Amino acid sequence: MKTKLTIIKVGGKIVETPESLDRLIADFAHIDGLKMLVHGGGRSATKLAAQLGIETQMVNGRRITDDDMLSVVTMVYGGLVNKQIVAKLQAAGVDAIGLTGADMNIVRSDRRPVVDVDYGWVGDVKEVDSKALSTLLDNGYCPVIAPLTHDRKGNILNTNADTMAGSVAQAMAAAYDVTLVFCFERPGVLADENDDASVIPVITPDLYETLKSDGTVSGGMIPKLDNAFSCIRGGVSRVVITRADMVGSSDGTVITE
Amino acid sequence: MKTKLTIIKVGGKIVETPESLDRLIADFAHIDGLKMLVHGGGRSATKLAAQLGIETQMVNGRRITDDDMLSVVTMVYGGLVNKQIVAKLQAAGVDAIGLTGADMNIVRSDRRPVVDVDYGWVGDVKEVDSKALSTLLDNGYCPVIAPLTHDRKGNILNTNADTMAGSVAQAMAAAYDVTLVFCFERPGVLADENDDASVIPVITPDLYETLKSDGTVSGGMIPKLDNAFSCIRGGVSRVVITRADMVGSSDGTVITE
Repeated sequence: MKTKLTIIKVGGKIVETPESLDRLIADFAHIDGLKMLVHGGGRSATKLAAQLGIETQMVNGRRITDDDMLSVVTMVYGGLVNKQIVAKLQAAGVDAIGLTGADMNIVRSDRRPVVDVDYGWVGDVKEVDSKALSTLLDNGYCPVIAPLTHDRKGNILNTNADTMAGSVAQAMAAAYDVTLVFCFERPGVLADENDDASVIPVITPDLYETLKSDGTVSGGMIPKLDNAFSCIRGGVSRVVITRADMVGSSDGTVITE
Repeated sequence: MKTKLTIIKVGGKIVETPESLDRLIADFAHIDGLKMLVHGGGRSATKLAAQLGIETQMVNGRRITDDDMLSVVTMVYGGLVNKQIVAKLQAAGVDAIGLTGADMNIVRSDRRPVVDVDYGWVGDVKEVDSKALSTLLDNGYCPVIAPLTHDRKGNILNTNADTMAGSVAQAMAAAYDVTLVFCFERPGVLADENDDASVIPVITPDLYETLKSDGTVSGGMIPKLDNAFSCIRGGVSRVVITRADMVGSSDGTVITE
């Protein structure tokens, strides 16, 4: 039987607000067994960019990353946000280690080719070194991963945190029984988007087709669920969609085969 | 016989200039055996602080680190400078991993008590976890260490890079035959400060006393050499004082017992 591994992905909003970060740290520290955290940091990056007079341009929800913006995200994701989380986890008794994809070459990516849009220094994940991450886990360390990768040609690349979490989870699934938890603003996938109590507990591929065709899930939930099912097809045991303050419980929507 | 370990400390000036950084990366990649890099980043921190309207105050060569300055150094040392070095080393075939003292709890420090000056979030090193660093080295990884530590209470602390390199070197000396290389602007300790060809090849404790009493070494060289001899007393096999572009050679001044 494979060892259990829990991978939690939290967005920038959670880790950039002191109260919600402290709550997350406490909940994360209580998760049993092997675990990893993948975080965002977009709001802090946008704020720092504005302070430096650098304009933030988003296309299809992705940040255009020119030279100056690459410095900003490297500082904010790899430095400020990552190291604050690591220091707080250490205080909570978790032997955390902050990583970008460049560190130990854990996540290599290719710069996204220009089709209609030049995203600049944005990377699409090509390869995850699960052995490096296993070495850390097996020695008692908890990886905390910032959404930055590298091209092995000396360049850092800005990389979507959801994609990063999904890619890492799939790579680790060969050796571990992986649960991947995506935190967002709502307590799960809702049957009625105006009712937080209407969380759908389990979504299978068949139910997903039904929910899409009857319009229960639509808009921004579709790429999230597509990503979740692609993780499941990639070997991840289960994907949970929940709210960050519920990470300590087993509540939320479970995506499974 | 202990395994050899080379620890190179370079200041901000070297790693913040693209040409000298590329030279350093190439030279460092060619060093045989186990190795680590400890870097500074003060100039970039001062520059970013100025861009953000944060005033840099130095007392006795140390940066006063209030809340805003702590964010700046965390971003610059832990993010920008550290990750750029890691990505470039990866491209040069060195499986680097960027670390602050908080990561894996490798360097714990205490906030410096206020005596005459309140340095703010500045830490004095208390403990180095050489086992964590050995785990990385033994698995083929090359630690790249930023001058930041933590207090294990959730706070990052700004820490002098020379002190950090010296503390790490002494901790590693229990298990390794450590050579610690301090890079600065001159090719070594000079008999005539106007002549770069006058490098003193070896300084023993006896010679150091002579050089001090006859005035050959004075001013800023004294704390550097005091630190070097304290590393030797702490078990480091040899300390080399040299210029960064000479790291690839064995030139410079060797400090030894």
